[in-house]
Amino acid sequence: MTHQTVGHRHTTSPGLPDDPRAAVTVPTPSCPVEITLAALRGRWTTLVIRELLQGGRTFTELRQALPALSDKVLSDRLAQLAEAGVVDRRREPGWPSRTHYGLTPHGRRLGPVLQALWDWGARPS
Amino acid sequence: MTHQTVGHRHTTSPGLPDDPRAAVTVPTPSCPVEITLAALRGRWTTLVIRELLQGGRTFTELRQALPALSDKVLSDRLAQLAEAGVVDRRREPGWPSRTHYGLTPHGRRLGPVLQALWDWGARPS
Repeated sequence: MTHQTVGHRHTTSPGLPDDPRAAVTVPTPSCPVEITLAALRGRWTTLVIRELLQGGRTFTELRQALPALSDKVLSDRLAQLAEAGVVDRRREPGWPSRTHYGLTPHGRRLGPVLQALWDWGARPS
Repeated sequence: MTHQTVGHRHTTSPGLPDDPRAAVTVPTPSCPVEITLAALRGRWTTLVIRELLQGGRTFTELRQALPALSDKVLSDRLAQLAEAGVVDRRREPGWPSRTHYGLTPHGRRLGPVLQALWDWGARPS
């Protein structure tokens, strides 16, 4: 993968964007890197996103895909991901009505992020 | 950014590699995504990596770049990053000898990972 910032002018943080948040000197929740890590944080979170990258799922389907995940933790994770703008719930018409959980467009853009995380971890040091 | 797996055949996890670790149904420390998140974990870790992406630094230089970071936490973070194969220490010849901390080739490949994390977090949901 070509480094996206090749050719950018030298800043205090070559390789990171020319943005004041790239020069913070203390951990800062509004730093984009921290925002993304916060969205991914927590046991099961990346697995739930992986399932939803395949398409919308009902709560029951998610539980079936990840059988060791409890209702309580799945609810918490879905709420966390909704809060982060990653997941939305869609009530389907019909009877009985079913609620589908799906990724927002922003959530789908986590695909390349998970891919980058995967690629680094899969490569021998 | 073009999704790197566009064109891959459909697997249980489209968008993730055709690897059994992409199909785990419980959080697994050997999952490449977990390996990378573990390497990045902890307050200050990504800031230390950001500094080192600019080149080798002595302990003192790192402390000056991140003045609110204590010696103790910086030592811990450098040890964690060395353990993860991200950082190495190089003793420079001369007197007084100085130890430089730098990224390994594997560590430098975290540049695109931090970039992907940044890009997602910087984009409005």
